[in-house]
Amino acid sequence: MALYLGMSSMLHTIEVAGILAFASSGFIEARRKRMDVVGVFTVAFITAFGGGTLRDLLLDRRPLFWVENQEYPIVIFIMSLLAIPFLRRLRSTAMENAIVVADALGLGLFSVTGSSLALEVGMPMFICVMMGVITGIFGGVLRDIICNEIPLVFRRSHLYATCAFAGCWTYLLLNWLDVSEVVALGFGVGICFALRMLAVRFDWKLPI
Amino acid sequence: MALYLGMSSMLHTIEVAGILAFASSGFIEARRKRMDVVGVFTVAFITAFGGGTLRDLLLDRRPLFWVENQEYPIVIFIMSLLAIPFLRRLRSTAMENAIVVADALGLGLFSVTGSSLALEVGMPMFICVMMGVITGIFGGVLRDIICNEIPLVFRRSHLYATCAFAGCWTYLLLNWLDVSEVVALGFGVGICFALRMLAVRFDWKLPI
Amino acid sequence: MALYLGMSSMLHTIEVAGILAFASSGFIEARRKRMDVVGVFTVAFITAFGGGTLRDLLLDRRPLFWVENQEYPIVIFIMSLLAIPFLRRLRSTAMENAIVVADALGLGLFSVTGSSLALEVGMPMFICVMMGVITGIFGGVLRDIICNEIPLVFRRSHLYATCAFAGCWTYLLLNWLDVSEVVALGFGVGICFALRMLAVRFDWKLPI
Repeated sequence: MALYLGMSSMLHTIEVAGILAFASSGFIEARRKRMDVVGVFTVAFITAFGGGTLRDLLLDRRPLFWVENQEYPIVIFIMSLLAIPFLRRLRSTAMENAIVVADALGLGLFSVTGSSLALEVGMPMFICVMMGVITGIFGGVLRDIICNEIPLVFRRSHLYATCAFAGCWTYLLLNWLDVSEVVALGFGVGICFALRMLAVRFDWKLPI
Repeated sequence: MALYLGMSSMLHTIEVAGILAFASSGFIEARRKRMDVVGVFTVAFITAFGGGTLRDLLLDRRPLFWVENQEYPIVIFIMSLLAIPFLRRLRSTAMENAIVVADALGLGLFSVTGSSLALEVGMPMFICVMMGVITGIFGGVLRDIICNEIPLVFRRSHLYATCAFAGCWTYLLLNWLDVSEVVALGFGVGICFALRMLAVRFDWKLPI
Repeated sequence: MALYLGMSSMLHTIEVAGILAFASSGFIEARRKRMDVVGVFTVAFITAFGGGTLRDLLLDRRPLFWVENQEYPIVIFIMSLLAIPFLRRLRSTAMENAIVVADALGLGLFSVTGSSLALEVGMPMFICVMMGVITGIFGGVLRDIICNEIPLVFRRSHLYATCAFAGCWTYLLLNWLDVSEVVALGFGVGICFALRMLAVRFDWKLPI
């Protein structure tokens, strides 16, 4: 029980860090395209919640995560209003590294919980993995489409979707082996995070 | 009662004017990209109904507005077939001004009724505003994505989404003060419209 | 009965051929943009299933086709892993012609069955045609949006959406005349296919 509570509050912390990291990449991209505050908010919002929203549309789950937790869009809205001073701070190397780490944690958490939600409603195995990866990466895909770029995650860059893929399979495998949910989640997130960190550190890419 | 009927038929007239104005901006953009009649119809249709459709997908409302009222897509389809003579008329300054006015009315009406629909199904305050703004602006956003442009509404231009935002808050505030629905709707639409007209007239923009 | 079984297994064969043809155009486009395996899979998958998925979201039908038949995404996934040797074979003229034929069959089948599904849930006539055309063409539209191009089907090229449009009307007309479902489907697909082949052969285009 104590383990569960510890895990649960840890997952919540990771979730908040992940959302902020995803939103930050939206802020940065929107500013690079010289968007005004409406654009900055929309792009940051879609980067943070686009993946989960698409998953929920595909699975027909309602209410949507951000509809139930309106404090998240409100926080992103306030951050958008303050974007200029906020972004100046993002330019420091320490901050950039913090964002890479938080983004990797967010990727792991969003992907693995996406798989877990799909499993809950009885989806077949491969679909659970796809729903997980969609949850993890489609926020960024939509960000790039709005910013009129070919999605970064489809171009040749450090492993990203592949890490989500590995994390989701890890989770599903442990779940199939009847390992407790919280341990399976933890391992799935951990594998995705570790693989992503290694890919960034050692410059791992997929072949074209 | 007479007031209500008067308002109701006025709202219907604004709705038709708004849909035609939204569709016109789709026609113009699609023609500029040298699309054929299929492209012209699709872009005009998505500009007019994309925002409301996205809202209904997010709120899980069915049937969709244009599914229930198939005369709207049929009208846009016929207009697409006649697009070339029709567009020549759009080039006159009088027509351009009429489109700006009708677009501002449409923006107000779509946004405020979008908020009203979200309120009806019990969404929290900030989500109602977001649903209103999505209804008002996402048709244009999807138009620009299909036409391979960064959405105009996110770039630095005359206030647009901000007017929808102000109109939605006005409506929600009046609703919260227990003002009658029809008056709250009227004021919401009016504020959005007035703000938009002022922004165009006096060149108001958001800071970057 | 024998006729029905014959038609049914023929339709299934056409479906598989159509999915493979649609996916192939995704492979080719993704490779042209130098995407890695994640991009190749996603673009191929969305090209093959994007239209039907959008239709099902609009009509609120669940489970989605590819969720119920996970062997389809798995096949596309495996093909993505093998994409390079596979694509070399696509470059032969014989293979290119085979893809054009399979794509035209797929377009007919997807469009007409899209209309049929919309009719089944009681949509009005024009909406049934729109749902059919969306099912047939929106996979390619989404492929082009992700690849940062103006959708090919909206630009001036050989009749494509128009063939789907004609096929859907043929099906609906025959259905309205109380012709048996299987014959109406067959004629709808046939008209779409024949028109598409003629358009490619004789260079038919829509006027701008």
